[in-house]
Amino acid sequence: MKYIKKCVTSKILIPEPTILRLCKLYSLLDEMSSNGVTIISSREIGIKLGVGAHNIRKDIGYLGETGTSGSGYEITKLRDSIQSRLGIEKPFNACVVGLGKLGTALINKEIPMARNMVIVAGFDASTNRLETIRTEVQLHPMYQIEDIIAREKIDLAILTVPDDQVQAVGLRLARGGIKGIVNFTPVELHLQNEPVFIRNIDVMSEFRFISALMHA
Amino acid sequence: MKYIKKCVTSKILIPEPTILRLCKLYSLLDEMSSNGVTIISSREIGIKLGVGAHNIRKDIGYLGETGTSGSGYEITKLRDSIQSRLGIEKPFNACVVGLGKLGTALINKEIPMARNMVIVAGFDASTNRLETIRTEVQLHPMYQIEDIIAREKIDLAILTVPDDQVQAVGLRLARGGIKGIVNFTPVELHLQNEPVFIRNIDVMSEFRFISALMHA
Repeated sequence: MKYIKKCVTSKILIPEPTILRLCKLYSLLDEMSSNGVTIISSREIGIKLGVGAHNIRKDIGYLGETGTSGSGYEITKLRDSIQSRLGIEKPFNACVVGLGKLGTALINKEIPMARNMVIVAGFDASTNRLETIRTEVQLHPMYQIEDIIAREKIDLAILTVPDDQVQAVGLRLARGGIKGIVNFTPVELHLQNEPVFIRNIDVMSEFRFISALMHA
Repeated sequence: MKYIKKCVTSKILIPEPTILRLCKLYSLLDEMSSNGVTIISSREIGIKLGVGAHNIRKDIGYLGETGTSGSGYEITKLRDSIQSRLGIEKPFNACVVGLGKLGTALINKEIPMARNMVIVAGFDASTNRLETIRTEVQLHPMYQIEDIIAREKIDLAILTVPDDQVQAVGLRLARGGIKGIVNFTPVELHLQNEPVFIRNIDVMSEFRFISALMHA
């Protein structure tokens, strides 16, 4: 899904590439602010993010008022402005679908993901697994996906099912009303015509690539 | 490091973007072959990978002999050719540096990474942590990094140290002779003039981005 956003009154639609750059800018500002830096110019931001200063100013323009001064942007004010406009720290509910090793590590928050994400449900096809996994999160069989998404108001699904189930489960999640999917499987997930945002994080391919770089 | 490869006799230097595309092609072929498909044309590959057929043929040209037939490439032969040329299944040694939650999950292979990677060492600055973590992998204090990399012939380091130590530890690893670093911290690692390949996998930023897409 691209550019198809709910158009809330008083909110201007932000294009996806701008959202990505604003997220990177948020990380940069957060780091700089914790290092005690207070002001940054669009030129400096551009250099650090590898983007032209003009684009930076345009991206920031989507935020409305942002605290410019003669010498640049106030770092904490700009950071907070991005945070509130993009809902970056707004709490939301998530679920983990597929409770193998990775899914179990994710459900128990052994992997740092997002401070504002609350994992409220886990799903697996194996009853045996549902009974033996130790977690404080509520676990459910796969056939309840649609019900639980609606009941628990789940926005995001983290997908760690076996490779051959990725597309089918992805489609069920989308039709069940999920807004976003982070797909940790090696199979790239594409759901055309479904209003769902997808991020594919293929850790195995990254390792394969660096292994090839080192050994080719 | 880009394009600076050991130039082994009889091996042609492969540019980094080609290596990346060949890795993706390898994943595609591996999946197709397990689905029983036997032949694929450069045109079909191009469509599936979103790259022009001409580029695909050029990339494959780096592999030497690859099993073409009138109707296309033999899938298993092409896959095996990529595998052997890029050393994709060649075993190599790795270490995990920083044994927090994520580092501990990684050292215990709770996250699928690479079949051919053998984790032979873990490092942490905390003696207490080194004594309490349960693992079959040998653990060492941080000051031994250089010694252990050399002694255990470690090619790759997986970096999960606290944010403020990423650059310093990255530099020590590079100077200690590591060939590649997979950086799982939110801090982007850059080591100019050091002959080391780096992949930054910033899981937190991916979650922040999808959260922004859903809520902006």
